[in-house]
Amino acid sequence: MSTFDSFVSAYGPISKVDAYGYLDSLASGADTSAPGADTHKRGLVVLVTADTPLKASRGEGKTTATVALTDALRARGIDATAVLRQPSMGITAAGSKGGASGGGKASLKNADLADWGLFGEMMRIATAQNLIVSLAEKALEEGKLTEILLPRVSEVPSKALRKIAVAGGEIAEKCVLSPTSEMMQIVTLSKSMDELAERISNIIVGTKNGKPVKASAVTDSQRIATVLGDAVQPAVLETEQGSPVYMHCGPFANVSIGIPSLVSVEMACARHDIVFVEAGYGADMGAQKWLDIAAREFGAQWPVAAIVVTRASTWRDDPTLQWRYPFHIQRLENAGIPSFPLLNLWEGEDDLVEGLREHAAEQGFRDPIAGNLFRDGADALVSQLDDFIAAISAPSADELAAKVPPSAAGEGVMGKLKDIIAESYGVPAERVLEKDSFTPSLAAAAKLAAAAGFSVNDLAVVPVKSPATMTDDDTAAASERTVTLKKAEVHAGAGLLHVNLTTSLTTAMPKIV
Amino acid sequence: MSTFDSFVSAYGPISKVDAYGYLDSLASGADTSAPGADTHKRGLVVLVTADTPLKASRGEGKTTATVALTDALRARGIDATAVLRQPSMGITAAGSKGGASGGGKASLKNADLADWGLFGEMMRIATAQNLIVSLAEKALEEGKLTEILLPRVSEVPSKALRKIAVAGGEIAEKCVLSPTSEMMQIVTLSKSMDELAERISNIIVGTKNGKPVKASAVTDSQRIATVLGDAVQPAVLETEQGSPVYMHCGPFANVSIGIPSLVSVEMACARHDIVFVEAGYGADMGAQKWLDIAAREFGAQWPVAAIVVTRASTWRDDPTLQWRYPFHIQRLENAGIPSFPLLNLWEGEDDLVEGLREHAAEQGFRDPIAGNLFRDGADALVSQLDDFIAAISAPSADELAAKVPPSAAGEGVMGKLKDIIAESYGVPAERVLEKDSFTPSLAAAAKLAAAAGFSVNDLAVVPVKSPATMTDDDTAAASERTVTLKKAEVHAGAGLLHVNLTTSLTTAMPKIV
Repeated sequence: MSTFDSFVSAYGPISKVDAYGYLDSLASGADTSAPGADTHKRGLVVLVTADTPLKASRGEGKTTATVALTDALRARGIDATAVLRQPSMGITAAGSKGGASGGGKASLKNADLADWGLFGEMMRIATAQNLIVSLAEKALEEGKLTEILLPRVSEVPSKALRKIAVAGGEIAEKCVLSPTSEMMQIVTLSKSMDELAERISNIIVGTKNGKPVKASAVTDSQRIATVLGDAVQPAVLETEQGSPVYMHCGPFANVSIGIPSLVSVEMACARHDIVFVEAGYGADMGAQKWLDIAAREFGAQWPVAAIVVTRASTWRDDPTLQWRYPFHIQRLENAGIPSFPLLNLWEGEDDLVEGLREHAAEQGFRDPIAGNLFRDGADALVSQLDDFIAAISAPSADELAAKVPPSAAGEGVMGKLKDIIAESYGVPAERVLEKDSFTPSLAAAAKLAAAAGFSVNDLAVVPVKSPATMTDDDTAAASERTVTLKKAEVHAGAGLLHVNLTTSLTTAMPKIV
Repeated sequence: MSTFDSFVSAYGPISKVDAYGYLDSLASGADTSAPGADTHKRGLVVLVTADTPLKASRGEGKTTATVALTDALRARGIDATAVLRQPSMGITAAGSKGGASGGGKASLKNADLADWGLFGEMMRIATAQNLIVSLAEKALEEGKLTEILLPRVSEVPSKALRKIAVAGGEIAEKCVLSPTSEMMQIVTLSKSMDELAERISNIIVGTKNGKPVKASAVTDSQRIATVLGDAVQPAVLETEQGSPVYMHCGPFANVSIGIPSLVSVEMACARHDIVFVEAGYGADMGAQKWLDIAAREFGAQWPVAAIVVTRASTWRDDPTLQWRYPFHIQRLENAGIPSFPLLNLWEGEDDLVEGLREHAAEQGFRDPIAGNLFRDGADALVSQLDDFIAAISAPSADELAAKVPPSAAGEGVMGKLKDIIAESYGVPAERVLEKDSFTPSLAAAAKLAAAAGFSVNDLAVVPVKSPATMTDDDTAAASERTVTLKKAEVHAGAGLLHVNLTTSLTTAMPKIV
């Protein structure tokens, strides 16, 4: 049995991996020369991102593109894989959004299982956070706590759960959707059981007379880790063509970090040469968060290349929003990442390709990769990948590591925010506005952090905003676009500072549509 | 591959069975003569029940006894198995109760997995019911509903969730713990996917101007069944000694029906000769519900024998409660069920056995089976089982089927209640009292049922009461004991009428202790 296989268990029609155990064994120098042992690879990450969608529920086809690209690279003899986020069963079941496991010829096997909750991972994550809140309620009754800050978590959207009254209505609790919870962020970001336990302990569950009370004051992290159980294990799936795919964690990019678990990506890199990592929604969200949070602050790889998916209609049909797609590609190229446009064609759009290619050339893009991926899958792509393969073959993992900007930890929150807004949304510092409530909100966050023994400047900043807009008004002229800061919120366990922008039209508890 | 094996999937360290598929294949006459095919057995059910516990959190050791008995019968060459209820992770995690997977030498393998949520079955059941409530909220917004009756479900106990305000506080929702939900009852009682779908459709989610609105008006049952996913599949476990054990569903007997799923018992009977079925808490709850609900109304088997577990301290230490244990044994013998006392000894109690045997003989009991099961497991029991084996070897499944009393469906609720209270609690009809609120509550239930197109008399009655008391005051003299009826509630999907007794000290949402 190979090193890897000894950490894999069958789960119904698919399997799951004890990724913590596998990576620990690699780190401790597991004997890769033993008969049947794996070669430990040093795979490179390709970021799959997209144009900003016209609305949250209308994807550009990132998962479909990721599946087709993985199949196509493998057809070219390259050991490629994909790492996907787990779709939210609650959203799918409520009819708010379709599944997220590709489509047509670019689909996953066992897609229904993936769309409908796998083995309860998200429900375990929700339950783990809910248990902490219940224990906080008990601490509140006992006078150890005067306010609960950590929200409850629901697997399904619910209007009633947006605000809950505790203790006869005197104290309000909030409720968020499973994928948007701090516990989901912690599972996404933790690369070992020890790190997981520490992050759980550091969650701020509430305050007593203004002073933060950590989860460690109401429970031990082992109990919570036991509730999480196998939710920390990535699932191993396949595309319909038989390419390997890993799926783990599903935080939404609009109100969270939008990337698959770091441990699943690291495991995939140890197993394959090229690892497609899907981060959503558009490049202003998933890519921004992969680069500024995962790579820069949490040790994830700098991408060797990016694929930027768009639908012809998203890019071309609204003249006031046409600026966004070229902006994303340029922003990624500016960061030193070779970025390939991918045009995800729908039925009847084949004729548009020539015009789109010309338009792309005018914009100075690399030549787009184009195809009807639903209809043709990898077949549409195989012959178009020479430039892409050349780009991903050039650098080594060490060369990429050298490209990661130094950590911004310790720098001021305002500076970090202005950098993100300039780089990822194209709005310069002088047009970053603040609601009156923002300064007090940030000051309160800073005070809470200080009282908990760390600086708010140590946290990585997570913009919380609508997935469909980059600025206060994307249809305004470039020179007039603004971004307004609204409020700040500490996620001490995850090590993140959420900052809401006025464009946040979505909440952590979506409506049923 | 045997017929059975083709319905089994590995799930991490254990496996799960598509029991609906397996039973369908048997019903359709799967070829049991093919090479490697199973012999379809007609196993007999032995009910494992207990003395009424002194408090809810202090079990008599039913699971420990069930494990030890299964191991002991197999050591005697009999193909025995056990069917257990799934422990509530929420209660275990909140510290309200220990796990429920046996103990010491009478334990399950993978007990932690069983105690900590298996593969999210209960969370899926909770999510399925919550989705219906969320869709009901939407229907409420759209004016299709004016009141929500179906409670939300939480995996963990929570004070805040006991009452939730919807729509700005005008409309209250309730919240119950996963194992106590109507969806759990539906999964427990349904013996096919078709029955499951029909029961889901018939759930009354709320009312519009007093008229019932069914789940079928707010969703299709297929969507809910998809959310349930593999929660309908029993888990296959083993005892530490290697005896097969099935685990499925975990409704609490105090506020629900307290029995494992009927499909898991039916499957076990098709696979083994003797099937221990654990039903909790005491005989006044689990046994009463197995006999009056499962066997009489839902086609489950009449037990070939019963094991009635007690701890020496429960039976002997409180003189005012000593009447309960002999009452249970006599009540089961009266029903034609050979009932064997099992004394579950704790450390230091070995010397008590002789005195207890004498006491049992005075009471006219069958000779007790006694042992320190935690310390000695099956070894304590193997030599004491001759009488038991003789009792379970006598009747055939057909003879047992003839013993099941005719269905009480269609008979009046009051008559059913008085029968239960007389038979199972020893209180005659003239001492069954009613709170003023009961008659209006039962009338409202009858009206709701009639408006939904069925008679309240068609429902099986589920007493809802404290697990630690059988009457309003168990310490009163026999001639003065009363039982008071408090309120009635329709569970139309499950086909049950809940009737709260004044002794109900527990709620469907326990406190964290």
